[in-house]
Amino acid sequence: MTLHRFRVVLVRPHHPGNVGAAARALKNMGIGQLLVVASPEFDLEAARAMAVHARDLIARCRVVADLTEAVADCGLVVGTTSRDSARERGAVGPRAAAKNLVSVARSNDVALVFGPEDHGLSNDELGLCQRVISIPTSREYPSLNLAQAVLLCAYEIFLAAAATGRDRPAERPLANSRRTERMYEALEDGLLRIGFLHKGNAAHMMAALRLVLGRAGLGDHDVQIFLGIARQMRWAAGHAHPEEKAG
Amino acid sequence: MTLHRFRVVLVRPHHPGNVGAAARALKNMGIGQLLVVASPEFDLEAARAMAVHARDLIARCRVVADLTEAVADCGLVVGTTSRDSARERGAVGPRAAAKNLVSVARSNDVALVFGPEDHGLSNDELGLCQRVISIPTSREYPSLNLAQAVLLCAYEIFLAAAATGRDRPAERPLANSRRTERMYEALEDGLLRIGFLHKGNAAHMMAALRLVLGRAGLGDHDVQIFLGIARQMRWAAGHAHPEEKAG
Repeated sequence: MTLHRFRVVLVRPHHPGNVGAAARALKNMGIGQLLVVASPEFDLEAARAMAVHARDLIARCRVVADLTEAVADCGLVVGTTSRDSARERGAVGPRAAAKNLVSVARSNDVALVFGPEDHGLSNDELGLCQRVISIPTSREYPSLNLAQAVLLCAYEIFLAAAATGRDRPAERPLANSRRTERMYEALEDGLLRIGFLHKGNAAHMMAALRLVLGRAGLGDHDVQIFLGIARQMRWAAGHAHPEEKAG
Repeated sequence: MTLHRFRVVLVRPHHPGNVGAAARALKNMGIGQLLVVASPEFDLEAARAMAVHARDLIARCRVVADLTEAVADCGLVVGTTSRDSARERGAVGPRAAAKNLVSVARSNDVALVFGPEDHGLSNDELGLCQRVISIPTSREYPSLNLAQAVLLCAYEIFLAAAATGRDRPAERPLANSRRTERMYEALEDGLLRIGFLHKGNAAHMMAALRLVLGRAGLGDHDVQIFLGIARQMRWAAGHAHPEEKAG
């Protein structure tokens, strides 16, 4: 079973009770790691009551300052969204995603990230995610309770893990989020210097690059290649005549 | 869609909040009928807050004295259990059951029956059910919250009823081979000029890039981005001092 490689990250939850209910749902489905992105004052104690017999998850739950830190050591970061952007981000349903996530988790830590109850993950936070899940719901009332959304994703992963034979090939080890974030920083710098990026298009273009490379699933070797390309962009741009540099 | 032929019956629930949360979960999954088996004093008013935008289900919810009455007009009554009796009653998981339930609901009213939070349905009540569903869970903590159990069953029925297959990934249009080959040529040229590629590594590196971008599945817009990057690499390199160019 690969369930121990999964962690669920709840970003800025408003109601500690939802954190407790999510912990219970996770333990029901055999997932034991829960992180909360919140201020240090977040009331984990208030989450305990709703966790019932999953209080061990609350006891182990770390509260960290931002999502980058929460997923730094993960090979795959999966966001969730219920918004209209689901299609443009290539979001898939949890059932379609689960089988592959379980394969990836045989050789990588995998984070499932859920946004706040009201507005979901920000675009920056979704940008940290290599894949996006959107849960199918009725059009009439698409807004799921946070713990319910956590349960449905965990349920699909639990079933996929139970169905997965050990004979299936393990997925490639993926570069962790800390490394890929450094790579994106270096690429952005290089692309600015060679004049591909400018203030007007940088955010849009970097988001598009994240979508493409996120889909690709970068390993450490791939990250090295792009770091090398970024370094050479800086080198090439640095040797330009200053007066001829792109504006 | 056959979802309007489904009703959910909650038998002797202890916590009105669970009834409200179940109503929300049902409406999320397009099921609009909820009944409660309880004494006439049952506090539906207390269920309303947890129902959020599913208060219409609470407003229509009937409270009846016993299960027999609640399911009297149903062609099929499906019980739920998490107990050890699941196997001896021939219980199946909600996924295995859902497809057939949806077929049955094309010409019948179908009831899904859930017992009290602590002990589940009695043997007499299970005896009223023609089929029994048992939700797969971790052995370590098999007890689901009532509204969570309702959600998982409703989710499976919703997906089975959705003829459109919204859980399947949307197929993005991909760039054709002619365009991607032109892109790789331009990238190779740009990477040579900025000094990332040289005779010794070009074939290996371009093969690695093809693997990465091939996995990503590039659309026309993605190809345009990489063509733009290649163009700017050439621009940056062209402005370098000739004598300082990389060997």
